[in-house]
Formats: sequence, C-alpha cells, structure tokens
Amino acid sequence: MAVIYPGSFDPVTYGHLDIIKRCSKKFEKVVVAILKNPSKKTMFTVEERVELLEKELKDSNNVEVDTFSGLLIDYAYEKEITTMVRGLRAVSDFEYEMQMALANRKLNNDIETLFMVSGGEYAYLSSSIVKEIATFNGDISCFVPKSVKEAIEMKLKGGNE
Amino acid sequence: MAVIYPGSFDPVTYGHLDIIKRCSKKFEKVVVAILKNPSKKTMFTVEERVELLEKELKDSNNVEVDTFSGLLIDYAYEKEITTMVRGLRAVSDFEYEMQMALANRKLNNDIETLFMVSGGEYAYLSSSIVKEIATFNGDISCFVPKSVKEAIEMKLKGGNE
Amino acid sequence: MAVIYPGSFDPVTYGHLDIIKRCSKKFEKVVVAILKNPSKKTMFTVEERVELLEKELKDSNNVEVDTFSGLLIDYAYEKEITTMVRGLRAVSDFEYEMQMALANRKLNNDIETLFMVSGGEYAYLSSSIVKEIATFNGDISCFVPKSVKEAIEMKLKGGNE
Amino acid sequence: MAVIYPGSFDPVTYGHLDIIKRCSKKFEKVVVAILKNPSKKTMFTVEERVELLEKELKDSNNVEVDTFSGLLIDYAYEKEITTMVRGLRAVSDFEYEMQMALANRKLNNDIETLFMVSGGEYAYLSSSIVKEIATFNGDISCFVPKSVKEAIEMKLKGGNE
Amino acid sequence: MAVIYPGSFDPVTYGHLDIIKRCSKKFEKVVVAILKNPSKKTMFTVEERVELLEKELKDSNNVEVDTFSGLLIDYAYEKEITTMVRGLRAVSDFEYEMQMALANRKLNNDIETLFMVSGGEYAYLSSSIVKEIATFNGDISCFVPKSVKEAIEMKLKGGNE
Amino acid sequence: MAVIYPGSFDPVTYGHLDIIKRCSKKFEKVVVAILKNPSKKTMFTVEERVELLEKELKDSNNVEVDTFSGLLIDYAYEKEITTMVRGLRAVSDFEYEMQMALANRKLNNDIETLFMVSGGEYAYLSSSIVKEIATFNGDISCFVPKSVKEAIEMKLKGGNE
Repeated sequence: MAVIYPGSFDPVTYGHLDIIKRCSKKFEKVVVAILKNPSKKTMFTVEERVELLEKELKDSNNVEVDTFSGLLIDYAYEKEITTMVRGLRAVSDFEYEMQMALANRKLNNDIETLFMVSGGEYAYLSSSIVKEIATFNGDISCFVPKSVKEAIEMKLKGGNE
Repeated sequence: MAVIYPGSFDPVTYGHLDIIKRCSKKFEKVVVAILKNPSKKTMFTVEERVELLEKELKDSNNVEVDTFSGLLIDYAYEKEITTMVRGLRAVSDFEYEMQMALANRKLNNDIETLFMVSGGEYAYLSSSIVKEIATFNGDISCFVPKSVKEAIEMKLKGGNE
Repeated sequence: MAVIYPGSFDPVTYGHLDIIKRCSKKFEKVVVAILKNPSKKTMFTVEERVELLEKELKDSNNVEVDTFSGLLIDYAYEKEITTMVRGLRAVSDFEYEMQMALANRKLNNDIETLFMVSGGEYAYLSSSIVKEIATFNGDISCFVPKSVKEAIEMKLKGGNE
Repeated sequence: MAVIYPGSFDPVTYGHLDIIKRCSKKFEKVVVAILKNPSKKTMFTVEERVELLEKELKDSNNVEVDTFSGLLIDYAYEKEITTMVRGLRAVSDFEYEMQMALANRKLNNDIETLFMVSGGEYAYLSSSIVKEIATFNGDISCFVPKSVKEAIEMKLKGGNE
Repeated sequence: MAVIYPGSFDPVTYGHLDIIKRCSKKFEKVVVAILKNPSKKTMFTVEERVELLEKELKDSNNVEVDTFSGLLIDYAYEKEITTMVRGLRAVSDFEYEMQMALANRKLNNDIETLFMVSGGEYAYLSSSIVKEIATFNGDISCFVPKSVKEAIEMKLKGGNE
Repeated sequence: MAVIYPGSFDPVTYGHLDIIKRCSKKFEKVVVAILKNPSKKTMFTVEERVELLEKELKDSNNVEVDTFSGLLIDYAYEKEITTMVRGLRAVSDFEYEMQMALANRKLNNDIETLFMVSGGEYAYLSSSIVKEIATFNGDISCFVPKSVKEAIEMKLKGGNE
C-alpha cells in the first residue's frame, strides 16, 4: 500500500522524520507531499523545502518527495493513492485532524486518513516553535537535522540557501 | 421564550440551519443575529449574509434574521431577550464558548447561554472549511444549500451576488 | 416551555441548585428528575434525596421534584416534556454529555438537550467530592446547604435522616 | 499489509463494523482479535462474541476473527503482524489510546498503531451505551445489526444464544 | 526560591494579579517579566505595561517588574533564576504550556516550570477578552483594577496614558 | 520552601521518581506522602510502598517518605507545609487535578498546588499500566527500577516482599 504524508514542512523537523521513517518501514511507498499555499507566508520556498527533505531522505528508497496545490483529495486522486497519514501530538491536533479527516471522507468516500502518534520525545515539537527559538539564537540542534539548522541560520542572516 | 442565535454566518451552512431549525421547534421565537464586525474580513457583506439566511429560512415563521454590532449583551438588552443559543461541535469550541458564556454572565447576570450539540454529521463543519474547499474547486454541495453554493461560486469568480 | 433536569442528586449541591434556579427563571416549569438506579450504591435513598431537594426548593413554585427509572427518553415521553437540561463543568463532562445527547436524539428525534455552563465558582463541585471530603471530617458548608450538610453527617454517624 | 484490530466486542456494534469494513478495503488482511479477559465481567462469552462477529463478517474474505489473552504485543508477535488499528471517537479515547500506543512501542519498537476516525454518525456509539439502552427496553436497532439485537434480547431474558 | 512569571500583560488583569499575589506569599521573590516582542501589535507600550503593573504591585515588597526580549531561558540564565511560574485556565492553555515547558527543559535541563490553577472566578479571563469588551463600551470594572480601566479608556479615545 | 508530593505510589514508577528528583533540586524539602486509603484495593501494603520508595530515594537527603490518611489539607496543616506538588501527564489528569486544587483552596485558602509537567518519555506511564503489563509477563524494566520490578514479580507469584 502507498500512502501520502501531506504537510507544510517549513522546515522538516525530527518529529516529521520520525513519522516518515516509521511509515517507510510499514508501507510500500510513502509520498511526502508539500503543500504549495501561496497565501501563507513561509520561511522556505517550496523548492528549498523539497531540497531539505530530499537530503534527509536520500537513503529511504521507498520515499518520494513531491509538492501539490489545491485540495489534498484531488492530489490523491491524481496520484492514485487513497490513504493519507498524519501525526498526532496533542488534543488540539486531534480535533482539527479529526474534522479534516471527516470532511475529506465526505468529499470522497474512498479517502482514508491513518493517524500515528508522535513519539513521546517529539510531542512538543513543531516547525513554528523551532523557527521561534532560532530567531532568538536558541540552539535548535536537538529539534532538526544539521542541514536544516544551517539552512535556518542562513535565512535568519538574510541569505539564500 | 425567545432566543438569540448569534454568529458570523459567512456564509450559513447546514450545521447552522440544523441548530436554527431545532431551536424554532422548541422556542417561540428565534432571532438569528449576524455580527457586523468591520475589523474582520468576510467573504460576504452583512446584507448578502442576511439575504442568504432569509432565503433558506423563509418557511420558518418564528425565525427572524437581524444584524448587530457592539457587545452581544447590549444587543440582547435592546431586543429584550436574555437567552442566547450556541452550537457546540468539539472540545475547542467548548472552552471558548464556556469562557464567553461566563464573561457574559459576569457582565449581566440575567444573560443565560444555552448550548446545543451539533448533529454528528455536522461535527466537522464550519464556514471556513467550506470556503477553503470551494477555493480549490471542491464540491461543497453536501455542506451548504444550493443558493449558498452558487453565491460562493459567484464570489470566487469575482462577481457579486 | 417545560424542561427536565435529570441526575442522581446524591446529594444535591450548590452546583445543582445554581442550575435549577437559573432554569426556573428561564423556563415555565422545571422537573428535577432523580434517577432510581438500583444497581448503583448511593449514600441517600431516593426518598431522602427527594426530601433534601424539596426542602431547598420549597420557594420555587415552578420547580417539581420527581423520580424516574429506566430510560430518560421514556420518562420524558410520559411527562410530555421533550427538553432536557444538563450542566457542564469541564471537558470530561462535555464529551460524555455530548455522547448521551446524540444517542438520545438518535432514539427520539424530538428530544433536545440544552447545556448550561456551571458558574465559575462551582466548576470543581460534584456530589462525590463532597461526600469524600465529609468522610474525612472536612468542612463542606461552602459546597452544600445546611440541611444537606446535617443529613450527610447523620449518615456518616450511621444514623438515618 | 496485515493488521490486527483488537477489542472486547461485547458485543460488536455498527461502529466496530464501520472500522472493520474500512480496514478490509485498505489492508490485505484484517484480524479482529477479541481479548479474553477473565477478570472483566462481560455480557457475552468469548465464543458468543466470535459467533456474532463471524455472522456479520462472513462476506469479508480478508477478515479473520480470532481471540487472544495476555499482552497484545505478544499476540502480535505470535501472529507475525506488527500493525494495530484502533478507532478514535473522542478526546477521552484519544488520550488513553495514545498512552497505550506509546507504551506498546516502548515494549516493542516494531509495533505501530494506526488510528482511524469513527464516522460522524458513530461518534457516540459504544458497546456499554448499547447494553445500557437495551437493559431499559430501548430500541437499539440503529446501533447494532439484527442478529446482535436478538442476542442481547435473549441475554436480557436470561436465556443463552 | 525566586521565580519568574513571564507574560505579555497587555494589560494586567485581576487574573494575573491573583497569580502574582499567590506567588508572592509562597516564594521569596517574584519577577514579573514582560516580553518585549516587536513583531506583536499591543495596546500598551512596554513602558506603559510596566507602569500599570508597578502601580498595582507597589505594596508587594518581594515582587519586581522587569522586561525581557529574546528567549525566556536566556533571560532566566541572566537573572540566575531557574524556576518559571505560569497560570493555567483551561485545557487549551494546558497543551500549549505543556509544549513550551517541555521545549524549555530540552533547551536547558535546569529550567523548571511550575503551573498554578487560576481561581475559578478568573477562569474565563484574558487580556484580549477585556480589550474586546472595552472596545464595545462594555463595563470591565470586574476584570481589571481601576487604573487599568482608565488607561484602556484613554487608549480607546486615542489619547496616551 | 517545603512541599508535599502526595499519591498512592502502588508502586512507585520512573515517572514519580522524575518528579521527586526535580522537586528535590528546587525545594528545600520534599515530603513524599503515601495515602492510606483502606477502601481502595492495592497491590502493595503501605509499609511495602514506603520501603520501595525509601530504597530508591536513600541518596536524596532532603526527601522524606511519609504516610497519611484522611484529608490532604489536614495532613498539610499538621506538617505545617502549605504547598503541594502534582505531576501532569495528560488532559484527563489536568481536569481532575484542577478540580482537586480548586476544592482544596476553597477548604483552606493558604493551600497552593503547583503542577509539574511529566517528562515527554513518561507521559504514558502510570502504576496501573505497569501492573497490567506485569500481570501478562510483559517486561517492565523500562518503567520501574529493578527493586520495584522484583517486588511486583514476587507479588504476582503470590509471595510477600
């Protein structure tokens, strides 16, 4: 079975990588699908986010990094994959995700969302917290891989990756 | 007993209509009160929102569509109605609504807020999810009535209703 | 409109009385309905619970104290009252109550449950906490009326009311 | 991929059947595993629960009904299946399930638990609510299949299935 | 033991003052630390917020009002105080606070966050609700001290404090 | 400042020890207070629970293990300690603890409860889960210290410690 793991990944954290690697052990193929949302301000361009993810996942043969715009269920239809994977960290996550999963099934009855629990040590981790800590020169090396850390530092200095 | 059902209704969904119709069976009069909040960007003008609601509710004789600005408790005082109705979908709703209900009672001890549980099939439904799906050309016909669907499509094409 | 406020009331607390009095201001008639559940061990017999409630509510002319066994919706049908009232204190309350409200509507589509938020100062209050505190000789006079306090003390000394 | 869907199923409801059927569309094989827990009082014996499930699932070729005792992860090891499926209805479910999923991964790092959201209309449904309603002669035909309804009625009359 | 009570305090409410006073009874020293966050729009300047807090706390000898920018853990390091205090009102608070507390401990293992429950009567209170009510000419005198009320009214009239 | 850390500790887990050790670094004295509750069935006697705790805490000079019966606030009064510490793992914990903290403050206004977040890796851990896993011969060595593991195994074989 192939699955889609959709998200913003702005940028990828150890929390995302934990979910991706656990998926790649269980499922035949994992498509990490980055949402292109022009109306949301991001730190990294879609191309940069693809690059950061591909660098970290280059040894995972059954993982593909891709991008999409529009509705997730339309992208899923096009890729001929009907199973989504999402990580759950906390109750607030849970309610939003539950609403999206129910709305997606209403739109297309074949679409199924599978949830995986984020490992205990990543329960507090989000891309926004990482960016906030980095902005104030906090050490983020236990939250993101080295290449992501460097990319964030470059951005904060005003440079490009 | 008369009740006020306040909200943004930008635009009205089947979830709102479910609450309104259940109220109209129980209470002598239901005032659907649309908040005019100039600082919040909406898809529909207040006039358009009134029109959409009135079209759907034209057969409910004890339902009135109205608008208000300022504090809900001041509007309630002016209408001489001291009971509010609110729909509850999820835990996140619950906490915000509970805070507002307690704050309103602190401001005016006569004001009472009654909560009704959204029907299971509408538990995931909100005006924002509907607008988001429509933006990406998703089919929203199971979330809103036909007239609302057409009005949203007009808006997205850049036209007026 | 008449409403039923069902519960165990073993015994009645200031939290229950707050809901009952707020209901009696809003609704024409309030039936406080004590559940007779033979399989649940209680501190007070149903007769004693009726007596304690009636003593506290003797000045509320539109409040009736009654008892019922079996399904709430059957009792409601028999009383010809289709509106239930329940107090909400916390999120855990909310989920259980939401499930019961949805199940009751599935069983009888006319049954409506209205929720009221327990006042901030009663948010922590339950009959079981009161009994637990009294068991260890704690002072419960800010949680229950004087007559209830005395009845609990009688019970704990092994006497009858 | 094969998955285990563990539970008490005392008795199976439409909520369980919804999860099982959605699983059987996605996964190659679904093992519905009934926990034999001698210390927990049940309405149906393990044999009766197997029979009720098998009757409902006789047309699902890739679904097997089985029983287990002891730890779920030991049963999983023995069946050579490392993926569990669980349904999520509400926040209270979520926290307990999250704790069990994390504890299971701590015990065996290969064990993965996938969560599926219960359909909106089954969000309030549990075996205990069904049994409670049936005890008071409520109509449970919208919660469980006909054969389960009849089996419950037999039990409540004191007979055997 | 000295503690830091960090926040925006835009402006201070009775809810904040309740936590501060309870802290000042328990701990040797309480530093009320106002976050200077240039990217967040506030009603009061940092200087005005300091002034409002100092006016209300002038009789609390072991309370110091201070400001900080950047990461809380860096400020804590500089002040040589490793214990933070935060108030908890509701579940939504709880999850965010839990994530921040875990992230801070990951960044500096000596940092400990202690949570105190907001008193029942302040459970619904936040600076934003107060500002929203004041904007619509609602009476906020049961939410904030007199001096804060006057300062808000000045601001809304377009004046300076 | 001295604090009381109350609980059942039936038996102590790494989650409890994490809270105790973090407390012993922050507070001058920590009293670990085991509740003697004759009406609750426990795996270990109060004496055994004291022994297990003392063995693990013998190097913590400012930690005292004690027992109490009756109300926590009466025990606190007797020990002349007015600050309680409790660990928070999940939302369900939070609500119960919040109710107890508010009830205790109502009973005695000087009593303050401070909450500490359980470390991410202990978020799923409870004495009951540990006992359940041990009952089915699961390996509990990552949840409790060696001496506790051995004591549980002795109990399950029917022996005494």
